[in-house]
Amino acid sequence: MKAVKESYKHFSKSYLFTEIEARVVKSGSLDLVSLGVGDVSLPLAPSVKNAIIEAVEEMGTRPIGYGPTDGYPFLKKALLETEYAPYNFTLEEISINDGISSAITTMTSLFPKDYKIGIIDPAYPAYQNAARLEEREITLLPCLEENGFIPQPPKEKLDIVYLCSPHNPTGTAMTKDDLQMWVDYARAHKAILFFDAAYHAFIQSPSVPTSIYACTGAKEVAIEFRSFSKSAGFTGLRLGYVVTPKELAISSFWRLRQDVYSNGFAYPVQKGALQALSPLGKEETRAQVESYLQGAKVLKETLEAKGFLVYGGEDIPFLWWKVGGDSWQAFDTLLHKYGLITVPGKGFGPSGEGFIRLSAFLSPAKLEKALSRLETVTQGVL
Amino acid sequence: MKAVKESYKHFSKSYLFTEIEARVVKSGSLDLVSLGVGDVSLPLAPSVKNAIIEAVEEMGTRPIGYGPTDGYPFLKKALLETEYAPYNFTLEEISINDGISSAITTMTSLFPKDYKIGIIDPAYPAYQNAARLEEREITLLPCLEENGFIPQPPKEKLDIVYLCSPHNPTGTAMTKDDLQMWVDYARAHKAILFFDAAYHAFIQSPSVPTSIYACTGAKEVAIEFRSFSKSAGFTGLRLGYVVTPKELAISSFWRLRQDVYSNGFAYPVQKGALQALSPLGKEETRAQVESYLQGAKVLKETLEAKGFLVYGGEDIPFLWWKVGGDSWQAFDTLLHKYGLITVPGKGFGPSGEGFIRLSAFLSPAKLEKALSRLETVTQGVL
Repeated sequence: MKAVKESYKHFSKSYLFTEIEARVVKSGSLDLVSLGVGDVSLPLAPSVKNAIIEAVEEMGTRPIGYGPTDGYPFLKKALLETEYAPYNFTLEEISINDGISSAITTMTSLFPKDYKIGIIDPAYPAYQNAARLEEREITLLPCLEENGFIPQPPKEKLDIVYLCSPHNPTGTAMTKDDLQMWVDYARAHKAILFFDAAYHAFIQSPSVPTSIYACTGAKEVAIEFRSFSKSAGFTGLRLGYVVTPKELAISSFWRLRQDVYSNGFAYPVQKGALQALSPLGKEETRAQVESYLQGAKVLKETLEAKGFLVYGGEDIPFLWWKVGGDSWQAFDTLLHKYGLITVPGKGFGPSGEGFIRLSAFLSPAKLEKALSRLETVTQGVL
Repeated sequence: MKAVKESYKHFSKSYLFTEIEARVVKSGSLDLVSLGVGDVSLPLAPSVKNAIIEAVEEMGTRPIGYGPTDGYPFLKKALLETEYAPYNFTLEEISINDGISSAITTMTSLFPKDYKIGIIDPAYPAYQNAARLEEREITLLPCLEENGFIPQPPKEKLDIVYLCSPHNPTGTAMTKDDLQMWVDYARAHKAILFFDAAYHAFIQSPSVPTSIYACTGAKEVAIEFRSFSKSAGFTGLRLGYVVTPKELAISSFWRLRQDVYSNGFAYPVQKGALQALSPLGKEETRAQVESYLQGAKVLKETLEAKGFLVYGGEDIPFLWWKVGGDSWQAFDTLLHKYGLITVPGKGFGPSGEGFIRLSAFLSPAKLEKALSRLETVTQGVL
């Protein structure tokens, strides 16, 4: 047996979703409704499914081998034309990957070990877990009720800052002014922003831009990560993309990293993503997006009618439910007493304590069941 | 603009296959036959294709979201029962990934930076490129004509050793005795073997084991990497697996790494892989394997009949053609004069100089065309 790195050896065993899964299994209950992991619960859109099948059929008639390690040009081109039309990016500035999780955690590998990393708190746990495994210096940027869950630039100089808007888990979205504040900070301090835009497709508020490149000077400082997971229900297929503007001069290094560490991404999945960007695909997936947001609205109204304080849910189907004290205890109560799987805010970082995240990525049937259970939750029990 | 790591900044721009691609484009020739990248050239086997389509259809009727980050148990179980039946591994000792490239290059991230890495030379470039990007200390282990292309354990202590058998690019396979020599070295020096078994499905020689676990004590020291890329034509789909025996006590750390840095692998591709392991899938893919090996045999005989010295091709469809001098020059001659894309041995490392790798992953039509061109190559021209 060979010793592993200290950072691995001493990593806390309780990875959030693993811990939740363990508590769920231990509960022994079979009749649970999950408002936990933000996973899609509607099937693939018909035209997207058909496009994937067509590509697999094609692979059955002619060999389709290794694709480009930064994705097929057909998909990159479609992304530039549909998602990034206002920003005039070139094919060299966008690359495909197998999802934000892997891209946003490995993008740091391009940068020196002593770069100071700022990470919003609470946040998707992988940002911090990856930085911890790499023994990097981390500064947490609190997103609290007091600041409207909008992280504020610190006085000190950070080199890399992880931002996410609309924000998983607090359900709050940053306005253009909020984002511009960070772009200005980054320009002043020569920092890079890792902007996680996983939920861009859900944005409804006119003041919230769907891309950080709507901000002045953002191309000089921001890398934007997006995915088909939430916008087109690709969680079980794995596909994302990242924009590395030429002003940052890192595209060739990211391409080098991908050339060395990976070997491209599934052809049929890229064909499905292409279809998701077509007018019909957009129409179908927009209907799914609206269904999830409608669910968030009803969930929020139900809890508010019972006197609870609930944030978010307008530009992202996550609710941030203020429960006061120990969020793991509230999680346990909701699990054991109400048969509901949720996520304790503390699992997303210390600033998440006192809150519960509810995911509204629900099918209509699951939503109804969840609502009837939430109806019975009384003030003071959590 | 933010500075990247020194190892990225000073990385030689000439990534092997990118350089080949550039020379091919520059040649301006349209009528080329590729014996270059070892990419499959037969379509997906029918039953495998159908299984993938069935899984995509399923995703169109019910939501199938995030899968386990180490792969679906149905696939892990099938692998243990079909590929690893003699070795009594448990589900915890095997995990799924998106191919050997990513798994074998990131497995090092579990281990301290000062671990000494031994890498066979010549070899698949990613082993060395990844180690260089991570600024690790590398010892090359030459596979030369003089040692029958079998790497020999050094006197010094290495911590991690990359081995590959059947060997890309020399086409030579290690016998059980050869592998046992390395297992014994690793046990004596408390080293870990990273065993790349990408080509296990092609093994014909009775003296060559398809798994390193055929060796006594291998479970204490060896991690085995395999893939569906070459055995089932999955290069455009991306799926592999890795065995981390419990004796090594690293399974939980690898799982942690995958939990943090990835989010599982495409469901339909895993269903296709399951089918590839079934009796019908095995029968279909075995026919492809035999077709490629038959191509290697004919290519080799053709060159030998012309008086050339050619190694390999029996347990892996790669030939290692001795051309003498500068292999990039031989590559250029074959490209410009004969319209053949090959790989210069030097591209796989310094010990590859003097050789050209020919891939026999060819369709019958391509093989015929390649043969007619090789027929015209004369001694002394390379």
